[in-house]
Amino acid sequence: MARIVMKFGGTSVANLERIQNVARHVKREVDAGHEVAVVVSAMAGVTNQLVAWCKEAMPQFDQKEYDTVVASGEQVTSGLLAIALQALGVKARSFQGWQIPLRTDSTHGSARIAGIEGEGLISDLKSGTVATIAGFQGVAPTGRIATLGRGGSDTSAVAIAAGVKADRCDIYTDVDGVYTTDPRIVPQARRLEKVAFEEMLEMASLGAKVLQVRSVELAMVHNVRVFVRSSFDAPDAPQIGSNGLPPGTLICSEEEIVEKQVVTGIAYSKDEAQVTLRGVQDKPGVAASVFGPLAAANINVDMIVQNISDDGTTTDLTFTVPVADYERAMAVLSQSKADIGYAKLDGATDVVKVSVVGIGMRSHAGVAAKAFAALAGKGINIRVIATSEIKISVLIDAAHTELAVRTLHSIYGLDHA
Amino acid sequence: MARIVMKFGGTSVANLERIQNVARHVKREVDAGHEVAVVVSAMAGVTNQLVAWCKEAMPQFDQKEYDTVVASGEQVTSGLLAIALQALGVKARSFQGWQIPLRTDSTHGSARIAGIEGEGLISDLKSGTVATIAGFQGVAPTGRIATLGRGGSDTSAVAIAAGVKADRCDIYTDVDGVYTTDPRIVPQARRLEKVAFEEMLEMASLGAKVLQVRSVELAMVHNVRVFVRSSFDAPDAPQIGSNGLPPGTLICSEEEIVEKQVVTGIAYSKDEAQVTLRGVQDKPGVAASVFGPLAAANINVDMIVQNISDDGTTTDLTFTVPVADYERAMAVLSQSKADIGYAKLDGATDVVKVSVVGIGMRSHAGVAAKAFAALAGKGINIRVIATSEIKISVLIDAAHTELAVRTLHSIYGLDHA
Repeated sequence: MARIVMKFGGTSVANLERIQNVARHVKREVDAGHEVAVVVSAMAGVTNQLVAWCKEAMPQFDQKEYDTVVASGEQVTSGLLAIALQALGVKARSFQGWQIPLRTDSTHGSARIAGIEGEGLISDLKSGTVATIAGFQGVAPTGRIATLGRGGSDTSAVAIAAGVKADRCDIYTDVDGVYTTDPRIVPQARRLEKVAFEEMLEMASLGAKVLQVRSVELAMVHNVRVFVRSSFDAPDAPQIGSNGLPPGTLICSEEEIVEKQVVTGIAYSKDEAQVTLRGVQDKPGVAASVFGPLAAANINVDMIVQNISDDGTTTDLTFTVPVADYERAMAVLSQSKADIGYAKLDGATDVVKVSVVGIGMRSHAGVAAKAFAALAGKGINIRVIATSEIKISVLIDAAHTELAVRTLHSIYGLDHA
Repeated sequence: MARIVMKFGGTSVANLERIQNVARHVKREVDAGHEVAVVVSAMAGVTNQLVAWCKEAMPQFDQKEYDTVVASGEQVTSGLLAIALQALGVKARSFQGWQIPLRTDSTHGSARIAGIEGEGLISDLKSGTVATIAGFQGVAPTGRIATLGRGGSDTSAVAIAAGVKADRCDIYTDVDGVYTTDPRIVPQARRLEKVAFEEMLEMASLGAKVLQVRSVELAMVHNVRVFVRSSFDAPDAPQIGSNGLPPGTLICSEEEIVEKQVVTGIAYSKDEAQVTLRGVQDKPGVAASVFGPLAAANINVDMIVQNISDDGTTTDLTFTVPVADYERAMAVLSQSKADIGYAKLDGATDVVKVSVVGIGMRSHAGVAAKAFAALAGKGINIRVIATSEIKISVLIDAAHTELAVRTLHSIYGLDHA
């Protein structure tokens, strides 16, 4: 017998029929003897309608009222799921964020979780009642409803799993797990049985959009085992694999992964634009003069590369920004030209960041060299290189995305047999 | 400067444009220097959709979960109205039932109000903030959301007016006040300037469906002055009448009505069916044997009439039941025939109850005689008569409804000049 938190997103609860399907998923776990809490999103489309109304009422709306309005979506789903479970003969009751309570800070619209008082929930779970919980929301110190921001339901689920000391947090999604890379690009991509938190963080932030980065961070901090699985699987018949789990991917601590792969996956992100400042003065304080104005404009900077200058006086500085912020970034840097002191401003948006991720990399040399050689062999020019302990990222021309991902997937032995 | 509670129903907040119109109504009162709390219903249609989902999930749904689901409708409106007010430069914040808190008993689905802690609201009102309050809901002793049942928003508004010691509770409806009778039947019907609580109770329960009976009862107990007015009036330009109020009807205590009318209005109800037991034994306990089984079947009985019997052994017993319960009532009485001991069971559904209402009746003789004579003069047969201190009701054939109402409206001098 285990204690499980299950989480279903908006498309899984889009209408009553799907909510009833979710109820069957939950009943399966209850019938297996588990204690279950279920975290749900709003029915697909509902949140968008509510947000549209807020904007129509006032483009710069009050975030506190916005939270009150949009949190109603999850409230409806939590109640309907409780009824659907009762219709199957399963004891159930709904909880809103303020009823648990799940406490947040006062950053309405994108609140951070401050803490969960899990005792009430645990007592209900122990009595055999399924808790159906409105995701995405909590209660601020003022007693007002606060939402965690888009995608916050994953974060709610992980936080509640930590709060009730759950054995596992099952995230049901429209994919059946985490893959070695995007199967749309590489048909040989394999589903991973286990991924370490650190690897998942790199993969999630790089574009493998299975889980919100925040939820993975939270899972890592509280060591919550997160299981990604498909909501389209038949609800009544779990197929247990050799690892004792149904099909899906377990995201867990490194310690639980016995045989560590050197490379776990290949991620890519098209959401990148390259900015290059040529002829920058090579002197203290210049980096601050570049990145200060960008930070003030709320533009995130990634993949910063600066070489030792040739002549000891000027150098080139290259970095990437989100493609949506590219025009603004170029404008900010043009305005700051006198302060920074550079010769020329270059940029490109037709670029892609491809990353090789794997915790085994730490103990293996030559991983990066292998990637560079393989890309060179295909005639792919590398614009920028950035590395971390468990990741090698390269910025290349967008036209070469598929070729680069397929090549890297193949040379590290990730292709399906 | 006054403290005012304003209440807007579902059709008045049916879409964002109408919510913005409500905001202008509220701004007018704020600009006039008043402290304002606004109680709102769900946007028209929303509640029906939510109820339909609950039923679809389980026909005999859990009332606690139903409350959680349907209360979301008012939550959305309260938040959107706060935003719409802020867009007009008016300080505003929303309150849910549990945030006030408005405490109820545990009768989920049709909870009764147990009490309101108005201090928080009053402090906000005093600081010049408009409180936009989700109607129809409160919080049960368990901490769960409880709804007051259909039409509960009127009751919420009156309860909140009592809780914050408001000078007036303005109920905005799709009619512009309370009339001497139904204007669709009698074009000469006049809008009443003031109606006593007791009169309104008789009129509301008799089919003048402007206000929920429960809300009038609550207003009478707490002496809350309720003002019924039209939500279709131009929001920005109030026309103040000679009584110091804009067009509408004030429902208030008798003391506030200086010149009491003998007859205030003529009400009618088509929701009546007549049941007659002929040849009932005229002995102690027989009434209990008739009405006991009906009460057990949850059928409300009205207008009970029993004459002194001719021969001292048997009599006829007539009463009315809601037309929706007629078939059930007849079945219950047939089954109980042996217990009761009657000769024959008669009934009719093509009947209507017409009532003459007025607090001045108490001090005027001959009011009833005048009605009976007028109806006789038009050849209208009276089936049953029932009277109270401030009301005379007659049950007649439904075919004579219009004629009877027009005749009574005319003879008591209620026709518009």
